[in-house]
Amino acid sequence: MNDIPPSYQRVVLAARPRGPVAPENFRLETVAVPALADGQVLVRNHYLSLDPYMRGRMSAAKSYASSQALDDTMIGGTVGQVVASRNQDYQVGEFVGGMLGWSEMGVSDGELLRKLDTRIPLSAFLGAVGMPGMAAWYGINQILAPADGETVVVSAASGAVGSVVGQLARLRGCRVVGIAGGPEKCAYVVDQLGFDACVDYKAGTLEADLAAATPDGVDAIFENVGGACLDAALARTNAYARIALCGLIAGFNAKELPINNARLLLINRLSVRGFIVTEHMEFWPQGLQELGELVAGHQIKYRESVADGLAAAPEAFIGLLQGRNFGKQLVKLI
Amino acid sequence: MNDIPPSYQRVVLAARPRGPVAPENFRLETVAVPALADGQVLVRNHYLSLDPYMRGRMSAAKSYASSQALDDTMIGGTVGQVVASRNQDYQVGEFVGGMLGWSEMGVSDGELLRKLDTRIPLSAFLGAVGMPGMAAWYGINQILAPADGETVVVSAASGAVGSVVGQLARLRGCRVVGIAGGPEKCAYVVDQLGFDACVDYKAGTLEADLAAATPDGVDAIFENVGGACLDAALARTNAYARIALCGLIAGFNAKELPINNARLLLINRLSVRGFIVTEHMEFWPQGLQELGELVAGHQIKYRESVADGLAAAPEAFIGLLQGRNFGKQLVKLI
Repeated sequence: MNDIPPSYQRVVLAARPRGPVAPENFRLETVAVPALADGQVLVRNHYLSLDPYMRGRMSAAKSYASSQALDDTMIGGTVGQVVASRNQDYQVGEFVGGMLGWSEMGVSDGELLRKLDTRIPLSAFLGAVGMPGMAAWYGINQILAPADGETVVVSAASGAVGSVVGQLARLRGCRVVGIAGGPEKCAYVVDQLGFDACVDYKAGTLEADLAAATPDGVDAIFENVGGACLDAALARTNAYARIALCGLIAGFNAKELPINNARLLLINRLSVRGFIVTEHMEFWPQGLQELGELVAGHQIKYRESVADGLAAAPEAFIGLLQGRNFGKQLVKLI
Repeated sequence: MNDIPPSYQRVVLAARPRGPVAPENFRLETVAVPALADGQVLVRNHYLSLDPYMRGRMSAAKSYASSQALDDTMIGGTVGQVVASRNQDYQVGEFVGGMLGWSEMGVSDGELLRKLDTRIPLSAFLGAVGMPGMAAWYGINQILAPADGETVVVSAASGAVGSVVGQLARLRGCRVVGIAGGPEKCAYVVDQLGFDACVDYKAGTLEADLAAATPDGVDAIFENVGGACLDAALARTNAYARIALCGLIAGFNAKELPINNARLLLINRLSVRGFIVTEHMEFWPQGLQELGELVAGHQIKYRESVADGLAAAPEAFIGLLQGRNFGKQLVKLI
């Protein structure tokens, strides 16, 4: 078992971004390991998850969640190991997922912890068998429900959410077309993940390329990006197409993120639904069970971008917002 | 009974609009009354309905319906009286609704005719108890389903659809806020139709005025206009608000009609659904029954703008697209 050090490092929100996120928005701090109160658990985090939603929390502006307080530990999902426990439900040595933030260690009352199946790689619980996987599962199963033979478009297709979206849709018998940035990501999406096609939005011919890749139009869109990606997909919609709005990463640094093709919402009688997967926890047990089996059976593949050490987290997060990551962005802490 | 004249007048689509609709897009013609084939009915139209959807049909661009052919009678809903019949289901003298177009008379095989309850004013079957009323009924009952105490916003509030939307929502116990153009329309919407408030979009302070009129935010939007009206309403949405997209009249003469507040679709987890009420005919018997009773019982009021004679139809239609009408726009033919 691990010895418990006297202190650990964490990253706090030092200042809210004005425009793009910058390193000076964060501050690395060393803090003392606290004594545990009755019922508390001390966890040493092995991996920290970096996710686009964190950008929203950094702003003071209205969002679906309250903003991250200044000088508090940056919010974030983690997986790690219990190193001390005054909670009878958690034993030292157990592996747990939690929301312990950008921090080498964290204290929990056990409420938001879940025990992890050690037959699956630990980091997968932050990706395909974690929140990103559940976002994909919820959008596909509870919103889009694409039928065999329908065409599904997903943006940020090589990312943690998009890669699972496409593979789940393929398992339903859909034609799946991804949108990703650059030929390397597109090749991965088609060759490794098994999408039918992938369009490189950086090639400058997004509309024409997406049209060529969707000869039968588009029946369902899983949107992670917004902006030009969403407009291009809307332009290809068939009547009654459904759009699950999971993320709008294109707009994080913009004041406005217009949908220019809004007219098509009416003309093609589209349904659009924005959702936040953490508001639908009642589906998580079923979804995580299914995703875990698919990952264990290699029916869902995933890829990770791993930054090394907590001090690398701010730069990795900035890269994520710029699309520099390739697959699920993690920070390895141990 | 009416004598049957040897000829009648109709308006055909002479040219597709380039930019705003203009009088030269139409042509008034005199045509001979045809001999009836077996099964056919000859109807003398009393009223012609003018509706925003006709603008879409005039374009060659992709829309939800095939475009109106050049040199054909302009499409349109009508109410009138059977003046000759070789169809045993329809007797001379009966009043019928149909889609006989911008025309003093029309021939039907009976398929799209419906017999009208003569206890309700004939013109109401083109408005509150016709397609506009059904659009309101469908949006309120099948999409928005606003609960007692929720706040509903409807644009084009004094119009044929919007006026019914607001009154149906009031009957459900909602706070109803209209958006209309000019103080006269706004006063009518509040004083005569019983809306809780109405905001004048022409006053130049739409966002602030709508915010003041929706102190508890907005739970449901029935959108007839789009553009700035929709963006202002989106800015006031509460979490999980629903948007029924019935019309986008603001965009008929524009190339693009952006939704600038698209980010709120995600942040507030909104649901948007575009719909075309003629695709949901299975609800019409129930809806028209309910609307007919509400109109007969004076629980739904309506107002009409009546142009006199077929030759006045093009100018009246152009006025409708510019918001110059006040209430349901009709053309009285007899």
